[in-house]
Amino acid sequence: MNIISGGVTAPLGFEANGLSCGIKRSGKFDLSLIASESPAVAAGVFTKNSIKAAPLLVSMKHLRNLKARAIVANSGNANCFTGAFGLHYARQTAKLIAGKLGIQAQDVVVASTGIIGKPLPFKKISNSVGTLVKGLSRTGGKRAARGILTTDTRIKEVAVRFKLGGKTVTIGGCAKGSGMIDPSMATMLAFITTDAVIDPKLLKKALQTATENSFNLITVDGCMSTNDMVTVLANGRAGNKSIKRTGADYEKFCSALEFVCIDLAKKIVQDGEGATKFLEIQVVGAKTAIQAKRAAKAIANSNLVKTAVYGSNPNWGRVAAAVGSLAIPGVTPEGLKVKFSPFHKKEVWVHVDLNIGSQKATVYTCDLSHKYLEINTKYN
Amino acid sequence: MNIISGGVTAPLGFEANGLSCGIKRSGKFDLSLIASESPAVAAGVFTKNSIKAAPLLVSMKHLRNLKARAIVANSGNANCFTGAFGLHYARQTAKLIAGKLGIQAQDVVVASTGIIGKPLPFKKISNSVGTLVKGLSRTGGKRAARGILTTDTRIKEVAVRFKLGGKTVTIGGCAKGSGMIDPSMATMLAFITTDAVIDPKLLKKALQTATENSFNLITVDGCMSTNDMVTVLANGRAGNKSIKRTGADYEKFCSALEFVCIDLAKKIVQDGEGATKFLEIQVVGAKTAIQAKRAAKAIANSNLVKTAVYGSNPNWGRVAAAVGSLAIPGVTPEGLKVKFSPFHKKEVWVHVDLNIGSQKATVYTCDLSHKYLEINTKYN
Repeated sequence: MNIISGGVTAPLGFEANGLSCGIKRSGKFDLSLIASESPAVAAGVFTKNSIKAAPLLVSMKHLRNLKARAIVANSGNANCFTGAFGLHYARQTAKLIAGKLGIQAQDVVVASTGIIGKPLPFKKISNSVGTLVKGLSRTGGKRAARGILTTDTRIKEVAVRFKLGGKTVTIGGCAKGSGMIDPSMATMLAFITTDAVIDPKLLKKALQTATENSFNLITVDGCMSTNDMVTVLANGRAGNKSIKRTGADYEKFCSALEFVCIDLAKKIVQDGEGATKFLEIQVVGAKTAIQAKRAAKAIANSNLVKTAVYGSNPNWGRVAAAVGSLAIPGVTPEGLKVKFSPFHKKEVWVHVDLNIGSQKATVYTCDLSHKYLEINTKYN
Repeated sequence: MNIISGGVTAPLGFEANGLSCGIKRSGKFDLSLIASESPAVAAGVFTKNSIKAAPLLVSMKHLRNLKARAIVANSGNANCFTGAFGLHYARQTAKLIAGKLGIQAQDVVVASTGIIGKPLPFKKISNSVGTLVKGLSRTGGKRAARGILTTDTRIKEVAVRFKLGGKTVTIGGCAKGSGMIDPSMATMLAFITTDAVIDPKLLKKALQTATENSFNLITVDGCMSTNDMVTVLANGRAGNKSIKRTGADYEKFCSALEFVCIDLAKKIVQDGEGATKFLEIQVVGAKTAIQAKRAAKAIANSNLVKTAVYGSNPNWGRVAAAVGSLAIPGVTPEGLKVKFSPFHKKEVWVHVDLNIGSQKATVYTCDLSHKYLEINTKYN
């Protein structure tokens, strides 16, 4: 498998575009479109938050048949907690895009990210749909990656290429963070495209596993979003022998997909709101992998650990206290082992051995800085 | 019931003292002693954190017989994660105090608060025990309240007086915060004294209930401490007819004790690390009180809610997202009602109706400010 340049338009048969439609007062890009030139199978993973934004409700329905050809996403407004109008606008967005592309509204996935509870300025979106579709291109991946950003400071994309039975298969993706990140499913936006030929049910299974091992292992601030999702489109242009069952080809596809997801997930954390440092937290010696993950998340979400790292002030007491707060049976001060790398470096690892079993998990996070507070006190 | 001035030395027969023994480089008070002139029944509530500090292990053992006459506490060092030496020093502290007071070591409760994982500078404590005991006085409550502070900016004490069967009973208390506060039991120090005559088992029951309804409803940063505890001593000097069963007298005692605990708990939050605002979060319409409390805690511990309040930037989306992250069955965007008072005031209330039941809970917290980060990045 090789890492190649590009993102969602790296696989064959995908076009994309991004532009400013005026939702953001700054004039930054706030509308993106990713489209497959031909029909594609598709799958999505959505936030577990009970307060789901309107576009998620629409997209969950549209993806029920495991098919989709386009993803439209706006930033600057979450279209969440916006009632019947919000739902109407999300549906209308899909319909408008479908009309211009000459496809079914059912085949359009809709996503939004930004402030919660403000009415979606739908007119701005509808006015720009023509230009958005007209500007679709095989090199538009970067523009699409830009149009979904909120407090992110840079675009996040990746692409990989590998062989499946003699055919070249490509997977590309883009993502955005960078606050309200504690995916218990997928609390950010990530869009992945591939030209692989794959059974839609297997695609969904692969996406679920990859999400579990990537986006669900990151946290910025412990706050689960209402809006975020991971979606993958597979248009089959690579012409590989269809992946119809688990086995060598499926595993190869899965590991490439997981690589893409982990890469994007790490980029989200590295660009976390106000992040000055990247933390990798590994917990070993747990009874179950879930327990290891819970412990790693508890450390990752501890404001005291995050500020200690921010201040380059090593403190294993705070790490131990975070683990201890879970009151996991068998965990004792004598058994618990805490190690970490120097806190003044840009990348910090924390290694914790619970000493009660053999399971492990790794979670990625960033520090808590003054900049995070600045962003989140003056976001409006 | 009347609120009176004073704290732990307000009830009859209690003396206290506080001084600087040199643990804190700043020269601030770091050692406190509270003692009953006569035998007393006692009870304690301790953190649920599996990483319990050495003094807690000692105090839990000493309180097993529901008797104690003195509480010795140092600040500036948590004596946690300090191995066999830490345990030895905690026991030695009790022994030294007991020797000077002419009581059993078993009757001394030991507490510590401060940095985790550093060896306790026991010599500094042992050198000062003589002066500490010699300086005990009926007006020393304030000094004791001062000696337990860490990042607190002010002492926290309260006392109340009420009648039980014609006799005057007094309850006094002091407490400290102000970071690592998310009591799943009692993650701060609070010492309460009373001259009431009460059965020790009922005293313990009363303390547990009062803690549940006070200290366990506050959070500063969602971080559960390894060290903290609530302890009550009752020396019976008030001469009331002994409270031997639940009933009117017991209820009266309980409500006074709860008042003292709530008062101290609120003071901890008001003086939370870096706090600029006090938040009262009420959740109603839950299926169970525990569910309501979980939802209120989720809001209280959301960095996004806390920064929104800090920035006086009202945002019910963040409140809704925090509740939604719990994925409580039945909670929907349509049913959920969020109201709050203006965010620019010093005291802010948030009111959330889950609309799925009739149970409720209130949780107290503070905002997340730059000052919190300053304190927690430069604590050493």
